[in-house]
Amino acid sequence: MIPGPTPVPESVLHALAKHPIGHRSKEFSKIFCSANEKLKKIAKTKNDVFIYTASGTGAMEAGIANTINPGDKVLSLVIGVFGQRFADIAKLYGADVTEIKVNPGEAISPDQLKEKLKEYKEGELKAVTLTHSETSTGTANPIDKLISLIKETGALVMMDAVTSLACMPLDCDELGIDVLVSGSQKGFMIPPGLSFIYVSEKAYAAKAECKTPTYYFCWNQAKKALANDTTPWTPNVNHIVALEVALTSMCEEGIDNVTARHARLRDTLRAGIKALGLKLLTEDETASAAITAIYPPEGIAVPDIRAAFKNDWNMIVANGQKDLKDKIFRMGHLGFVTDRDILTGLSALEAVMTKLGHKFEAGAALAAYQKALKEKELCAA
Amino acid sequence: MIPGPTPVPESVLHALAKHPIGHRSKEFSKIFCSANEKLKKIAKTKNDVFIYTASGTGAMEAGIANTINPGDKVLSLVIGVFGQRFADIAKLYGADVTEIKVNPGEAISPDQLKEKLKEYKEGELKAVTLTHSETSTGTANPIDKLISLIKETGALVMMDAVTSLACMPLDCDELGIDVLVSGSQKGFMIPPGLSFIYVSEKAYAAKAECKTPTYYFCWNQAKKALANDTTPWTPNVNHIVALEVALTSMCEEGIDNVTARHARLRDTLRAGIKALGLKLLTEDETASAAITAIYPPEGIAVPDIRAAFKNDWNMIVANGQKDLKDKIFRMGHLGFVTDRDILTGLSALEAVMTKLGHKFEAGAALAAYQKALKEKELCAA
Repeated sequence: MIPGPTPVPESVLHALAKHPIGHRSKEFSKIFCSANEKLKKIAKTKNDVFIYTASGTGAMEAGIANTINPGDKVLSLVIGVFGQRFADIAKLYGADVTEIKVNPGEAISPDQLKEKLKEYKEGELKAVTLTHSETSTGTANPIDKLISLIKETGALVMMDAVTSLACMPLDCDELGIDVLVSGSQKGFMIPPGLSFIYVSEKAYAAKAECKTPTYYFCWNQAKKALANDTTPWTPNVNHIVALEVALTSMCEEGIDNVTARHARLRDTLRAGIKALGLKLLTEDETASAAITAIYPPEGIAVPDIRAAFKNDWNMIVANGQKDLKDKIFRMGHLGFVTDRDILTGLSALEAVMTKLGHKFEAGAALAAYQKALKEKELCAA
Repeated sequence: MIPGPTPVPESVLHALAKHPIGHRSKEFSKIFCSANEKLKKIAKTKNDVFIYTASGTGAMEAGIANTINPGDKVLSLVIGVFGQRFADIAKLYGADVTEIKVNPGEAISPDQLKEKLKEYKEGELKAVTLTHSETSTGTANPIDKLISLIKETGALVMMDAVTSLACMPLDCDELGIDVLVSGSQKGFMIPPGLSFIYVSEKAYAAKAECKTPTYYFCWNQAKKALANDTTPWTPNVNHIVALEVALTSMCEEGIDNVTARHARLRDTLRAGIKALGLKLLTEDETASAAITAIYPPEGIAVPDIRAAFKNDWNMIVANGQKDLKDKIFRMGHLGFVTDRDILTGLSALEAVMTKLGHKFEAGAALAAYQKALKEKELCAA
């Protein structure tokens, strides 16, 4: 139950093991185009999407390197490790970066952003980077409100949706996101190795004025190749074949059903955890549907919790990252995850907590889980 | 028989289809370190090697972006599409690039290089880029002599070994190559998705003085992660697991045996092709062991040859690239390729040529092939 690599369906693993076909063949182009069209459906966009043979960090760098000139003013909304990474990349490329930072587990509030935006003259702000679902804390930003404020300034909206796309509702075109980044090993149910970047017309316009050198991730090269139903450089053929299989299954389920499932997984998991008397890092209102960060009970160490999960139940839960190491543990529930997995995870959590001496009413997590699930089902019916 | 993606052994495909494990787990680190050590053996080097989740072009860009400052003088030896790509990347990053170019199928001669190097003042030349085996022409540069001339100038030696490493003899440390680049879907017998870059102490010294921004491909980040037996960003876990399986098999065969096999495949294939009266693009002395480029007989079109291979024998041979499109066709013989594959390829070529009306003595290719193979075996015995 880590937040990536996430579980992979057997059909996708089989697709991965097919003998690679030539990346300049018509057969491959057909699969590539089909994956491309489905990726657009998932993000609800008409924008171009490029499939990079690289992890999400590469796509984040691509967003900056294709748009930002040295000296450009960039505002970075930092709610954790990955928000910081976007800011760091912008700084590396010479942008004049201002950060809004909050405590771990908190999201950026629209009021905070509104105040900060007042400090910029009209048209002065080139881009705002933000994270939808912050993997390091399990916190989600209120993107609808934040993005609508950013749009008023005319700045480019650059969003890291690595652990949110295909997990949380996200309408790229309605929101007007200019650069949207995601990765294969999260909601997309395939192993790490690919990332995706969605590029708006406005982002292309920024590219046209951008002097920063970038080759492998260059949008001009990618766009030219896309017109010929291909990639500019040899892509990871096997992963793209597997991606197409995963996307087909996601489209069959329906993207709105996929995100509703993730919301249900999150809410039922949280209900169970709370019933054990454990504290969550993030409030319900700003909880990511992809990952949940949990404080250990007082006197019980995170490494002991992780060890008990692993040794007793052959399950992996993630530690905190950087400053949050050993302060929280994280359970991922994104991608190829069902209600049964949450039930299993909670059952194991009960067993682990019992073993480590945490006091609660036996069966509390499962009772709360079932109640929450029933409410959700009634709601959906 | 295209020059990549190349055939993949069943054991490697099975490894690819294993469920991904956490990239920060001890289990993965062990596999990662084992692959890393074997990659060094293949290149005969003590230098660090970084495994990028990216294709070879990404690793080429990494070589430039980590070492070259705008204005640095770079000499690029261009014998085809991929040599040109190295030069283009250096130009993009603001280097002052001079190119030595030759006709398609020709290699750069040591004399040509010697003359050109005279034009530079002592210590003025920052780096020389060159290609070992040029995929677009099937030509190999005489790297021993060329690199020894470059070393005299003190310039960094940056070599694209994408289709030569694990195909042709290459002793990175003896030659003193500073930046060596290769890719997974060639001699390494796994699908596209990974590339490798070997970095010398001298290249690290250049990195320390390099102001060019680069994040995903940054050597400092990669080196820090390597010290912790990992990668800085989420790697393609499945491909690395598969790579380790392929490398184990290569090390069992022995790298010198692997390159001897490739030389035998090249020489026996060339003998057969010549016996059909077909002209080769490259002379024997500078023929790559990975790929062979062939002129069509007069009056027979390349697309017809490729179509006959595909329709009659379910075999794919590559067209020429860019200016060489429809002027040559290319047969790849690198990676998971045996004598039997060459025999099959030549038999199909005979059948295709017969069908398309090319005149030759029936069985000529196979007779010449068998004679060449026997000579090779006598030689080896």
